[in-house]
Amino acid sequence: MELALCFSGGKDSALAALLADPFFDVTLVTATFSVTDAAEHAREVAASLGFSHETIELDRAVADDAVERMLDDGYPRNGIQQVHEAALEALASEGFDAVGDGTRRDDRAPTVSRPFAQSLEDRHGVEYVVPLAGYGRATIDKLAAERLRIETGPSERLAKGDYEHELRAVLRDEHGDSVIDEIFPEHVQSVVRGRQ
Amino acid sequence: MELALCFSGGKDSALAALLADPFFDVTLVTATFSVTDAAEHAREVAASLGFSHETIELDRAVADDAVERMLDDGYPRNGIQQVHEAALEALASEGFDAVGDGTRRDDRAPTVSRPFAQSLEDRHGVEYVVPLAGYGRATIDKLAAERLRIETGPSERLAKGDYEHELRAVLRDEHGDSVIDEIFPEHVQSVVRGRQ
Repeated sequence: MELALCFSGGKDSALAALLADPFFDVTLVTATFSVTDAAEHAREVAASLGFSHETIELDRAVADDAVERMLDDGYPRNGIQQVHEAALEALASEGFDAVGDGTRRDDRAPTVSRPFAQSLEDRHGVEYVVPLAGYGRATIDKLAAERLRIETGPSERLAKGDYEHELRAVLRDEHGDSVIDEIFPEHVQSVVRGRQ
Repeated sequence: MELALCFSGGKDSALAALLADPFFDVTLVTATFSVTDAAEHAREVAASLGFSHETIELDRAVADDAVERMLDDGYPRNGIQQVHEAALEALASEGFDAVGDGTRRDDRAPTVSRPFAQSLEDRHGVEYVVPLAGYGRATIDKLAAERLRIETGPSERLAKGDYEHELRAVLRDEHGDSVIDEIFPEHVQSVVRGRQ
């Protein structure tokens, strides 16, 4: 079964790929607005893990809508959620048997509700799979430490392949540096450098 | 990491074991009231899959309470849920690093809510993992067909290792055959005969 997994180059999506690998023909796919080199970074991580990798271009309007939402909200969660759903919709039209992502049990954003999952499956004739859905943070941290070489640091410093990196760039271009700190609280991110 | 997985000998818990196998030191554990030979059946299936197997004895009061609940409700769901939660509680006290089960995304009973999962983890110092939580029925059926040798048939005919088999026996002993048909609608069950 061919599975296309949304891939950011981060710990969660890399571990999701490893969990799925024995059971699916996995392609890692990075959705991009081509605003930064995020997708290129994700491609390098995918190669370091031994997976094939593709990029999928999202409409710039998706990024602009998400940034507007973040500015209105004053926090990033709903904007990131919108981008994630748009990425899954795009991916589900690409002809894979199944699409999935690296969301986990305790994630707050992005998350995929059961109704959204069912609707995605029904409308596109694909299966939606979430390898980490049944795992909490502690288990994922242990499995990742066993299986992945990981670098951690402030989210702003590390080159990343996820939506946040590109959405920050759009925000900065259009609204200046100060807005970034207001909307995105600084937090530690992880970047995968290969398998253990 | 040592993972104890609740195991019925059915398709879902067998597939959950296969998904977890590359990442955990898996022991399959069947909870039993020793009312039927269900646990012995599950042990044979576990052996056919190449996993180590243990049984854990649940208090007969758990079965009696569940049967009372089923009689009151007129359907089995809440009674089965009670037994599943009691089994996880018992398993979580056995000293494994992690405990889990074969529930899947679309299951109605048993299911484990996030608050119950968090509480189980906090009270017992274990991790709770659900390998199939991110997979729907269609995906699970395909993976099971690829990886498992499966026999299907009416739920009443097949010898099974799950709670339902023993709870039916308790119901029959105490309330006669006619109650069984009222509470448990006939449905097709699967029994695993080994790996593909």
